[in-house]
Amino acid sequence: MSEVSFAAALLAPRAVALVGASGDIRKNTARPLRFMRKHGYAGTIYPINPARDEILGVRAYPSLSDLPAKVDHVFFMIPGDDIEAMLEGCAQAGARVVTVYSDGFGETGPDGMARQEALVARARGLGLRLLGPNSIGLANLHSGVVLSVNAAFEAESLLPGSLSLVSQSGSMMGSLLSRAAARGFGFAKSVSVGNESDVTVGEVVDALVDDPHTKVILLFLETLRDAPTLARALERARAAGKPVVAYKLGRSEQGDALAQSHTGALAGNDAAVDAFLRAHGVLRVRQLETLFEIAPLTERYGSGGSGGSHARHETDQAARVAVITTTGGGAASVVDNLGLHGMVAVAPPPDFIAQMAGIGLKLRETPIMDLTLAASSAQYKGLLEALLRADWCDAVLSVVGSSAQFHPDLAVKPLLEADKPAAKPLAVFLAPEAAESLALLRAGGIAAFRTPEACADALSVYFQGTGQPPAEVPASDWPAGLPRQGMLNEREAATVFAKLGVPVVASRLLDAARLEQELAGLAAEGLSFPLVAKVCSRDLAHKTDAGAVRVGIENLAELRGAIAAMLASVRRHAPAADIEGILLQPMEGRLIELILGYRHDPLVGPTVLLGAGGITAELNPDYALRLAPVDEAEAMRMIEAVRQTRLIRGFRGLPLGDCAALARTIAAFSRLAVLRGVAVQEAEINPLFVRKDGVVAVDGLLRLA
Amino acid sequence: MSEVSFAAALLAPRAVALVGASGDIRKNTARPLRFMRKHGYAGTIYPINPARDEILGVRAYPSLSDLPAKVDHVFFMIPGDDIEAMLEGCAQAGARVVTVYSDGFGETGPDGMARQEALVARARGLGLRLLGPNSIGLANLHSGVVLSVNAAFEAESLLPGSLSLVSQSGSMMGSLLSRAAARGFGFAKSVSVGNESDVTVGEVVDALVDDPHTKVILLFLETLRDAPTLARALERARAAGKPVVAYKLGRSEQGDALAQSHTGALAGNDAAVDAFLRAHGVLRVRQLETLFEIAPLTERYGSGGSGGSHARHETDQAARVAVITTTGGGAASVVDNLGLHGMVAVAPPPDFIAQMAGIGLKLRETPIMDLTLAASSAQYKGLLEALLRADWCDAVLSVVGSSAQFHPDLAVKPLLEADKPAAKPLAVFLAPEAAESLALLRAGGIAAFRTPEACADALSVYFQGTGQPPAEVPASDWPAGLPRQGMLNEREAATVFAKLGVPVVASRLLDAARLEQELAGLAAEGLSFPLVAKVCSRDLAHKTDAGAVRVGIENLAELRGAIAAMLASVRRHAPAADIEGILLQPMEGRLIELILGYRHDPLVGPTVLLGAGGITAELNPDYALRLAPVDEAEAMRMIEAVRQTRLIRGFRGLPLGDCAALARTIAAFSRLAVLRGVAVQEAEINPLFVRKDGVVAVDGLLRLA
Repeated sequence: MSEVSFAAALLAPRAVALVGASGDIRKNTARPLRFMRKHGYAGTIYPINPARDEILGVRAYPSLSDLPAKVDHVFFMIPGDDIEAMLEGCAQAGARVVTVYSDGFGETGPDGMARQEALVARARGLGLRLLGPNSIGLANLHSGVVLSVNAAFEAESLLPGSLSLVSQSGSMMGSLLSRAAARGFGFAKSVSVGNESDVTVGEVVDALVDDPHTKVILLFLETLRDAPTLARALERARAAGKPVVAYKLGRSEQGDALAQSHTGALAGNDAAVDAFLRAHGVLRVRQLETLFEIAPLTERYGSGGSGGSHARHETDQAARVAVITTTGGGAASVVDNLGLHGMVAVAPPPDFIAQMAGIGLKLRETPIMDLTLAASSAQYKGLLEALLRADWCDAVLSVVGSSAQFHPDLAVKPLLEADKPAAKPLAVFLAPEAAESLALLRAGGIAAFRTPEACADALSVYFQGTGQPPAEVPASDWPAGLPRQGMLNEREAATVFAKLGVPVVASRLLDAARLEQELAGLAAEGLSFPLVAKVCSRDLAHKTDAGAVRVGIENLAELRGAIAAMLASVRRHAPAADIEGILLQPMEGRLIELILGYRHDPLVGPTVLLGAGGITAELNPDYALRLAPVDEAEAMRMIEAVRQTRLIRGFRGLPLGDCAALARTIAAFSRLAVLRGVAVQEAEINPLFVRKDGVVAVDGLLRLA
Repeated sequence: MSEVSFAAALLAPRAVALVGASGDIRKNTARPLRFMRKHGYAGTIYPINPARDEILGVRAYPSLSDLPAKVDHVFFMIPGDDIEAMLEGCAQAGARVVTVYSDGFGETGPDGMARQEALVARARGLGLRLLGPNSIGLANLHSGVVLSVNAAFEAESLLPGSLSLVSQSGSMMGSLLSRAAARGFGFAKSVSVGNESDVTVGEVVDALVDDPHTKVILLFLETLRDAPTLARALERARAAGKPVVAYKLGRSEQGDALAQSHTGALAGNDAAVDAFLRAHGVLRVRQLETLFEIAPLTERYGSGGSGGSHARHETDQAARVAVITTTGGGAASVVDNLGLHGMVAVAPPPDFIAQMAGIGLKLRETPIMDLTLAASSAQYKGLLEALLRADWCDAVLSVVGSSAQFHPDLAVKPLLEADKPAAKPLAVFLAPEAAESLALLRAGGIAAFRTPEACADALSVYFQGTGQPPAEVPASDWPAGLPRQGMLNEREAATVFAKLGVPVVASRLLDAARLEQELAGLAAEGLSFPLVAKVCSRDLAHKTDAGAVRVGIENLAELRGAIAAMLASVRRHAPAADIEGILLQPMEGRLIELILGYRHDPLVGPTVLLGAGGITAELNPDYALRLAPVDEAEAMRMIEAVRQTRLIRGFRGLPLGDCAALARTIAAFSRLAVLRGVAVQEAEINPLFVRKDGVVAVDGLLRLA
């Protein structure tokens, strides 16, 4: 037997061993053998069971070392503690991959995690790759490989197809397969990654990029465990033109927390993971069934938005959908949901109405083209073809009424027969219960949706599109003389920011140890007022809370009083704080104030955040988060994504702010991600003042690892 | 034939005439006769068709005057222009109700509206009630009355049941029936109201309140045409304990606009209609299929929330859901959506865990109780029964995994068999495709959902609950000496507000004609500074835009300059404005500023709004809208519904504002709805300052009809 690749051993093994296979067909552990025979696996199956000579008619072997030939893949269904001792046998039997269904590992706590780490270390030492533990297994629906106990494979026949699913939830792998299968969606591969102790989602995606049967990759995610590997795989998928769609838990705070506790993952951070997915070309859907219902849309038209071929270059510009229907109420139920996602139904212009009158269709200039007088199939087809070529809409939505239920062939005929250019997406919603029409459309490769919500979800996700990977930016040096770990003080942080290109407020540091001399010097040189005074200390991350800031100081006497009051307050609030001086800064004006944040996220790495400033921002979350670093174009998209910035972008006659300077500053700040020789843990500029002419960082902090 | 009630003639006619019935079974107009024979209508059917003696085996008559006996209801399927002439025949034939399928009336524009009004006037003159025009008809599924051309009634058998549907969209009536029927939901009545020229949604709801077959009333709404009638019917439904659930288009701006254009209705205003529905006990769902999927929940447990028996008295307190599952991922998909609606999954407390250990179940203190080790049916039932009696949760959610697909009986057995007290709602989500389990649960009266989104929608809508009708408040008199129509000036508006009990800023009006004398007088008496000066004019609704406000005036010289500058600005911006004087007010302090609005909504009548103040509020809609007047308790709920007020309700150590005074002021302002002798069109207090001690209205306007 020749050397087998990891991907082939994982997804298309030529021979498999089933450790712990049972002959009792009521048991889960009997399933993989039953499933593979039922679904026509052409390779060799070796049940391993020391108590039996034969299992369900297949010769069984007492141990891996007794096998008459090599295997590519071993599937373990025995108590977790017994596995490690058998790994050497796996290696000797020629296996490249072992999949562990057994649970009781990392998902149970620290002890289980220790067992898991030992298991993986042993496997790696033997040259084995390990899927799981706590994986419900995997299936290759084109070849009948079903190394899984998932009940979903009980089905009498499996529908091979072009979707592949990678799931962090074992039970949801089966649920999604059954839902999709009931709608005629066939799969190529489905893989439950379990605890991802060794093989992670990213490696499976990587294998699927090279799988010719896989046209669209679906992900059911609870968290992210190996971002760099997944990022590389996703970029390969993007380059190969294979759309990737994800449903990820954690849109709500509790959902986010649950996802981590359920999987024993690191701290959840949905916003950062969301930024990661978008940056690497993934369409993230909000409704469960959209995950597979969107597939025909992406398979035919790509990944939409800024990453695809149908870019909406102006993010402020709503995508325009032409809507044709025989059920005004049904169409409105989709359009209403589209509106919630910032899309608009668009009315046909007069010349188009005139054109359609030429084929006998009487349209009105309304956003839903309601063909109340039963249009003929030919007319419907003519209208559809004209819309798919019109320059005044970005997508076409057909909403079909009762004919979809009672005359499926007639209802879907014009949709199937119309000449559909690849340039403009077509989506269909069927208002009544209409399984047969859904199946016909599925068979015809047309995206058809069962609910108005999923239909709107898919179209909006498609048009929101995807983003870009972090910008390629040369690394820069850490300023000389500054600390290389721990917390910086405000003045040191400002030095770093300024070196990266962030405009920072002018400031002057008074030596706290000789304040009287410093103040006398200031009096002599004629300081400008009003000004701001702050206590400078690396031990005061929250200066305002410690009473360490005074604004609007009008003269030297006030300054003297302010300094005394601040020092007293700091001594009270933070007696241990090392006071490094008093910072004086001019009072700066601004149109609005924003927050710039940087964080090395534990899951996805460097991220940059632009958010609304001020206390009310906490009541109305209003921010844009991206993987760092970003370039100025991406920074401009961040600006457009923060509602607060509308106040400086032509709102009700208010003065315009300097968005170009703001974008430059965001990009500069995001280069904290590429500093040589240090690891920035987090940094913040708060507030960042935006003015008519330029921006200025007024306060900031920076913490190194 | 005895006199028949409107409701009986509408929903359970003993004999019907079908005007325009066709014998060509391919035609829509052949359907009602076919449908009624197919579905076993026991009454008499008279096809009216001058060209035929017999239609589909039933004797036909040339005209209504040829009928051998009386009818209760006439269904028109002939060109709209021919109907009016036949109405007299309807009356003579004993009909009480006519239903008009024909279109080309109000929905087409002004000419059609004129035809419609003439038709209705004629019908009313003859003592007939008219359903439609442009109605797809109605059905009584218990008696086989199908006065409808809707293809949904093609089904071989209709499932009689306890739901009744009233739809403003004809095509969606059929779509909803077909979707619900496919899930085993039976109907009592379904009625398409068409253009509601005479019989409106409210009258149909009223009839359904008295219908013993109807347990839950479902509404598919595009707009609201006769709010008072619907309000009375909804209050009767509430008193009768019949839940009403609505899906209403118009949550997005375009959806709202479309709903009106589609139906020829008055200006849409979704927020006001939403307030109306909640006030009158309607649960408004967000997802289409929730409309019927929620029915078992409401049928068994009432209308939830503040109107039902399971009130959440503190609106800030999230409803707590106990979640049991065999599929962690599936359960998390519901919980994640619940979190987006402000609900929480709640972990079992230690004593409950100990109690369950007693029946052999090992639970952990996590928010999802994942029964990974297959629990027995008896254990599952025991857990369920204990949860339904536990005091630490408000609802129980069961999420069933693959067993629902392959072993429906086993999967739903504990759910069906458990003793379920009426006090705590149970909802079920099935993760895989599992039609049979859904049907079994439906048959058992248990609320079961096909998607995680609909499940979360239903639970959150249920727990959000319903509101109260407008408060009963005695009318008060209009202040003497004020205008009784048109726009009031700021000082007059303040007089009205103050009389209702709103604290209004002190102010003094300088006569613009003798400003110099007035200013000299002020100088003599020693005016307090700083102060605010404004131009007082009923012609300046937007004073700031016209440069008619100056704040922070520190002395008499500044005041003189400010007045001159304001007058010049007003002359430039609004040359025709009648200037009634200069208003002087002290500068007021505040913790936050809010907006109080009043509007006589064209659809629902008097409404009161509390909203966040300031320009950024326009970027982040943040308001609560109610039918007016409100009492102080409802006003307090409005305060809690406005995010901005968190800043004065114990946020990060900020000072507390006077919410009691704010609630009193909202209630007082809302009494604009019950002023004798005038009709207030709109009013606004902007800003309303909220302080530690009291509130104060700083500026306002009021427009009478």
